Amino acid sequence: MESTTITILHNALIVTMDSDLRVFENGAIVIKDDKITAIGKSDDILSRHYHHSSVTLHDLHGQFVLPGFVNTHVHTSQQLGRGIADDVDLITWLHGRIWPYESHMTEEDSFISTLLCGIELIHSGVTCFAEAGGQYVSGMARAVETLGLRACLTKSIMDSGEGLPALWSAQTTDQCIQSQKELYEKHHGTAEGRIRIWLGIRQILNSTDSLLLKTRDLSRELKTGIHMHIAEIPYENQFVVDTRKVDHGTVTYLEKIDFLQSNLLAAHSVWVNDNEIDYLSKAEVKVSHCPAAAMRMLGFAPIRKMINAGVCVSLGTDGAPSNNRMSIIDEMYLASLINKGHEVFITGTTDPTALSAELVLKMATIDGAKTVLWDNEIGSLEVGKKADIVIIDPCSWTMVPVHDCISSLVYSMRTENIVSVICNGKWIMKDKKILNVDEGEIISQAKKAAKELLERAGISIPKRMQMI
Amino acid sequence: MESTTITILHNALIVTMDSDLRVFENGAIVIKDDKITAIGKSDDILSRHYHHSSVTLHDLHGQFVLPGFVNTHVHTSQQLGRGIADDVDLITWLHGRIWPYESHMTEEDSFISTLLCGIELIHSGVTCFAEAGGQYVSGMARAVETLGLRACLTKSIMDSGEGLPALWSAQTTDQCIQSQKELYEKHHGTAEGRIRIWLGIRQILNSTDSLLLKTRDLSRELKTGIHMHIAEIPYENQFVVDTRKVDHGTVTYLEKIDFLQSNLLAAHSVWVNDNEIDYLSKAEVKVSHCPAAAMRMLGFAPIRKMINAGVCVSLGTDGAPSNNRMSIIDEMYLASLINKGHEVFITGTTDPTALSAELVLKMATIDGAKTVLWDNEIGSLEVGKKADIVIIDPCSWTMVPVHDCISSLVYSMRTENIVSVICNGKWIMKDKKILNVDEGEIISQAKKAAKELLERAGISIPKRMQMI
Repeated sequence: MESTTITILHNALIVTMDSDLRVFENGAIVIKDDKITAIGKSDDILSRHYHHSSVTLHDLHGQFVLPGFVNTHVHTSQQLGRGIADDVDLITWLHGRIWPYESHMTEEDSFISTLLCGIELIHSGVTCFAEAGGQYVSGMARAVETLGLRACLTKSIMDSGEGLPALWSAQTTDQCIQSQKELYEKHHGTAEGRIRIWLGIRQILNSTDSLLLKTRDLSRELKTGIHMHIAEIPYENQFVVDTRKVDHGTVTYLEKIDFLQSNLLAAHSVWVNDNEIDYLSKAEVKVSHCPAAAMRMLGFAPIRKMINAGVCVSLGTDGAPSNNRMSIIDEMYLASLINKGHEVFITGTTDPTALSAELVLKMATIDGAKTVLWDNEIGSLEVGKKADIVIIDPCSWTMVPVHDCISSLVYSMRTENIVSVICNGKWIMKDKKILNVDEGEIISQAKKAAKELLERAGISIPKRMQMI
Repeated sequence: MESTTITILHNALIVTMDSDLRVFENGAIVIKDDKITAIGKSDDILSRHYHHSSVTLHDLHGQFVLPGFVNTHVHTSQQLGRGIADDVDLITWLHGRIWPYESHMTEEDSFISTLLCGIELIHSGVTCFAEAGGQYVSGMARAVETLGLRACLTKSIMDSGEGLPALWSAQTTDQCIQSQKELYEKHHGTAEGRIRIWLGIRQILNSTDSLLLKTRDLSRELKTGIHMHIAEIPYENQFVVDTRKVDHGTVTYLEKIDFLQSNLLAAHSVWVNDNEIDYLSKAEVKVSHCPAAAMRMLGFAPIRKMINAGVCVSLGTDGAPSNNRMSIIDEMYLASLINKGHEVFITGTTDPTALSAELVLKMATIDGAKTVLWDNEIGSLEVGKKADIVIIDPCSWTMVPVHDCISSLVYSMRTENIVSVICNGKWIMKDKKILNVDEGEIISQAKKAAKELLERAGISIPKRMQMI
């Protein structure tokens, strides 16, 4: 007996994001188990597949179909801390809010935080994300498995650095490496292959050279990626110049010690000079651009220069205390706007043609997949790839009229236009309803857990107005 | 017989935006006809008013209540042109897309466009807007009256300038002034006082000095405001320097001819120097900051400097072909982000404390009301003011957890959190349903009208991908 089910989505505008950038205006896509087995015009597909046994047909009535978005930098453990550090300077942000918050989390907090974050990611059309690094990979993995998402999970690793919370005693380099190996063995390839384990390095300020090099070697041995915050603020570069005797900053130093390689995901990379962009390009390092967090805390990354130099740049939301919207849709909108605006500081006027809508859409899909080293299976809608799919309703007041279907996805679309999401061939949201968890229940649990965590961590937020 | 109805909203977090920035944590507000007659703690209010005849009680179960937002710069006639000019240079934008679009509109197009735009404004929590200037004030006024919104409507006035479409023959100065008078007489104070007529000047590039001065004098005679695009791009300032013999640009020239006054609404004002900020402040000119449009087309306005100098700065969305989201909520988020980021070009690092959430919330409410010269009646929730109110659900995945209720309204809230809107004491949206028009019907009409308008105007949008 054959238990295979076949799903056909038809009568849709399908934006494939394949290498020919094909768009099927009245298109259909066939999903068998976890994979795409056919894609084309609705007429062709239906005439070839309609009579197959156990076919489920979905008429999408002209809705838009895209590859699931890839969020390449998100701290899922920080979701319970949304709003704990708004409008404060960086030292207060880190020492007064984020470190106390993260160091007082439990594994259960991490589980609930990732569930809440995952709900927001799914509502925003994300099917795959790269965790930026938290304390409890086991909690994250449980949540990802439950929600049906795809993820590259990472522990936040530090073996040195000053001012860390008392609850975190810095581990030895070997303990750090050992814990990474154990996580890899336990979780890599679990959840029907939807979970991969990457190696995490928080930042150069908390890393010995030994940690950097052993992590690099381990990543080669395990054939997995490394996720690291790189060149976030001018202070970081200055610290590297002062302590490691190079002429610019983190990227220059990482190049010098042969750390830059194609499996490195560099988050932010705001403060890089032309030489460093060249290093990133030659080593095929991937960059996650997080527009909102950058605007708020870091600065303007030279995204256009990086892309022109051939660097693969994708999009991330960063964590909830840095942004606070965990929406890759808003990041697309922002990426386009701020990089057009940024040109004013280079040429004297903004350039409305900079970072076109089609380029931004690539950053959120196929280039996101390349960033997480998974583009052989996701990032575009092609025969043989995994069925990671988002369905969009363009017929609401948020998007009408649609004169330019591609640009309207970047400039007009909002999270409320995301209707349904399929990951690994399975519906994980249908008609705006998250299928694998009770959203209301998670929200209640998250409110309670967040309140208790802040009390435990001794974080209190000053009032901004006269509360009566 | 008394036909007065009294509505009480209770069990809500009420952010009043009054001069003491009072927030009632379990608050209630009493609405009688079009006005707020009481505000306070729920217990007090209910004990005083509960037994009044014909009271309708609404338990808001902890939802947030704010003054309706004020959008101080929006081209409602451009809504049908959303997406017609994405990623194109400014000359193509104006000559190839916007002018052909606007000059081929009919009064009926303007009506439908304003209806569609108004639906988006209401869903975004806006109760009052300042029209930036279109061709058919009569069409706009019909739509505003129908939707139940409040607005300052303006005709786009030009009496000179090169390159205008053939369909628009520049009018004489006196014809321009006469048409403004007629519109004022016909529409000012209509729709139960919700519509006011302002005088419009498109920009200095299309204005003779005579038009500027006669408009100023007429505004004093009629006691109404003037809405004008000012200092949008470096070219504009250079044009003024070259032709009008001043040392900087538009604001310097307008100061010289005594055009700057407290009833002037200056849109954008991106390219102003310190002297000019001083002129704006001394003359009490109001500035509408449109973050998205500025990023995309104009540049970074020195907002923090203006506010520090005492200029009243509010928020606008600009028109749909410039942005394309007509959401004052997204503009709040953007205003905070880009003005934090902008500091990097002044001090070398971003300043996460710049433009605090409470300040941004003022820009969208009470300072918006001051900008449209209506703060004696709207912009805050106070006894005696008009009941222009927005109700927000903070308990969804977009905002949870709410550790800082004020910042979460600026950084986390999205349009989907807006539940209900009251304008002039009447519900115009309830539980996300627009009450005075059939939203689906307007969307259908708008799609059809937009398609026909583009055909008539001969505008075709190049394809960005391979359409099959």
